[in-house]
Amino acid sequence: MNVNVGGRTGHYRTVAFDPARNEVLLIEQRLLPHEFKIIATKNFRATAGAIHDMIVRGAGAIGATAAYGLAQGALAFQGRDLRKFHRQVDAVCQTLQAARPTAVDPANAMNNVCTAMRAGQSVEEQQQLALAAAEEFANEDVAHCEAIGRHGAGLIRHGMKILTHCNAGWLAFVDVGTATAPLYAAQAQGRKFHVFCDETRPRSQGATLTAWELAQQKISHQIIADNAAGHLMQRGEIDLVIVGSDRTLGRTGEVANKIGTYTKAVLAKRHGIPFYVAIPHSTIDWKLKCGSGIPIEERSEGEVLGAWGIPGGPPPAFSSRHPSRVTRHTYVRVANPTSGARNPGFDVTPPELVTGIITPAGIFEPKELWKRRRELGCSD
Amino acid sequence: MNVNVGGRTGHYRTVAFDPARNEVLLIEQRLLPHEFKIIATKNFRATAGAIHDMIVRGAGAIGATAAYGLAQGALAFQGRDLRKFHRQVDAVCQTLQAARPTAVDPANAMNNVCTAMRAGQSVEEQQQLALAAAEEFANEDVAHCEAIGRHGAGLIRHGMKILTHCNAGWLAFVDVGTATAPLYAAQAQGRKFHVFCDETRPRSQGATLTAWELAQQKISHQIIADNAAGHLMQRGEIDLVIVGSDRTLGRTGEVANKIGTYTKAVLAKRHGIPFYVAIPHSTIDWKLKCGSGIPIEERSEGEVLGAWGIPGGPPPAFSSRHPSRVTRHTYVRVANPTSGARNPGFDVTPPELVTGIITPAGIFEPKELWKRRRELGCSD
Repeated sequence: MNVNVGGRTGHYRTVAFDPARNEVLLIEQRLLPHEFKIIATKNFRATAGAIHDMIVRGAGAIGATAAYGLAQGALAFQGRDLRKFHRQVDAVCQTLQAARPTAVDPANAMNNVCTAMRAGQSVEEQQQLALAAAEEFANEDVAHCEAIGRHGAGLIRHGMKILTHCNAGWLAFVDVGTATAPLYAAQAQGRKFHVFCDETRPRSQGATLTAWELAQQKISHQIIADNAAGHLMQRGEIDLVIVGSDRTLGRTGEVANKIGTYTKAVLAKRHGIPFYVAIPHSTIDWKLKCGSGIPIEERSEGEVLGAWGIPGGPPPAFSSRHPSRVTRHTYVRVANPTSGARNPGFDVTPPELVTGIITPAGIFEPKELWKRRRELGCSD
Repeated sequence: MNVNVGGRTGHYRTVAFDPARNEVLLIEQRLLPHEFKIIATKNFRATAGAIHDMIVRGAGAIGATAAYGLAQGALAFQGRDLRKFHRQVDAVCQTLQAARPTAVDPANAMNNVCTAMRAGQSVEEQQQLALAAAEEFANEDVAHCEAIGRHGAGLIRHGMKILTHCNAGWLAFVDVGTATAPLYAAQAQGRKFHVFCDETRPRSQGATLTAWELAQQKISHQIIADNAAGHLMQRGEIDLVIVGSDRTLGRTGEVANKIGTYTKAVLAKRHGIPFYVAIPHSTIDWKLKCGSGIPIEERSEGEVLGAWGIPGGPPPAFSSRHPSRVTRHTYVRVANPTSGARNPGFDVTPPELVTGIITPAGIFEPKELWKRRRELGCSD
């Protein structure tokens, strides 16, 4: 998507590859929203390090990074011995997978690349096939998000006010994003609308990443405290809610997503406001039979007890200029120093609160997913 | 209530008076939860300054501060000329009222003091009556909160998990508080329970003030992100909700309170969890006929776009020690620097979501308030 750097607008993907230098190019997401920087990883170990250190995060984005990292490791092999080459490729896979051991996307992405690669007869052929498969994986991620955008854009009418929660934007994928895809598509079709970004405590991804994305795309938006959406709905100031999902159950239509999503769905239902969830095929879990079986990660207390930001006296006035360089990203302890916290990271929204699931194959009711499983890439 | 200072527990009121030195004694609330300090204002102008600068905040607390400030100004008068004395008293009233011009409690408190004072025949008699009336006003605030505690304590059973939002604790009143009063009363009766404090963004009064209060009283508690309560209710981890109110309509039972209260009431209703509002008589508005007529203050963007706290690398581990001295209370900008915010400060909860209103006169259904208006101090 577009990024304004030093007054000039460029087009970037969250994850890209430079074949001439055999480098993976990543947006350094830990510096956002205060600084925009592209980093280039010189070898597959550095690429694994970037996944581990969360320079890149988000299901689609780390999948594509692992796919490129595998191609990068394969391309760095010198020689013609296929057995030695495969030993190197296995080591590369293990290193990349170990970077985020519980994530499913890197494993799926690398399986794709390995399967495609093995059709080659020589090391060189397999190297080129690996790179082509990684490129295809990344392009398919983008194509899926664009399809979500095409289907979802029709929900957005001129003048609407739309609520979103957390970040399911292009920074979490290779490009375009899921919950944001309908916004970008509707904007491209010339419609004007306003987005309320839930701050999304405790990690504030709405206030930092989603707000940054929308600002770069020049979409009208405001950040609100997570407490404020109920009041805005009550006063008729929200017409539509679109969120992403970390895992949606294909058998039941239950939606696991960032903590607070369930609350917004309950409020939307009470006020008769349509509540949509935008997801790629890879997010659908076809096996689990009940949402209560989804493990809810308890994260660190420190996230709730404080906040990360840039120090500076009173808050600066609204400004359209991006600070040129950020040096002091600081944690402050907000809460009482002798109190602890509970910090569940996700919640589960039942299907009766979800108006529709926006997928690359179309918009479906949550209970309809199972019936549509062939179209949605379920191979079982 | 109790405060642990340097390992010793003392008993403090939020607002008190030292007649020997003619000084108002206030807890410096802007330093909490990181530092506990009592300040003494030397004259009525300094007392007005403390109200204006929010050293003291909360309806009951600023009412009592204004009452004491008026007595302080009256006591400082030297001479026997009653006309000159009344000119001085008028000037004192105006200075104290101007400190928070839209607040209703200082005006009511000072009216009480002036009415009582004018029964005296001499300057000296009126000075003593003013002081006695201020003391009585403060003691009545405490008595009202204690009565709320007696009525509300019966709602709290052993082992319960209770959610509260924002701070309607003793720091907002002279002592005891409203939403917290049933907790302190149940604790005094020997019951054990656990409290979840909503962080209460954007100003985080739950994470700072309420958590500090509960820690001082050694009540088991944890801070949660405002996003987390829905999930905890879904998993059966919340049995009861108690909040305060800034204004409750006596004619309709609608409850205006800190932004986010409405959301918690909607969630509680969905999960069949009792939702109570604790208020003193002075909070009831007997005139307004509809909650949509309550003006909702739009506060500054900066509150949503950042946070105040104490800098320090990674969050410290949970510690029972209070830091001895705090020097660097800092604002950090969290949000994207080119984004703005909406910041409504309050919302209105309709009566059908409120199980009961806990008042000094007993617990009533919201629609019952009007019928009970004589018991609840309505003089119209």
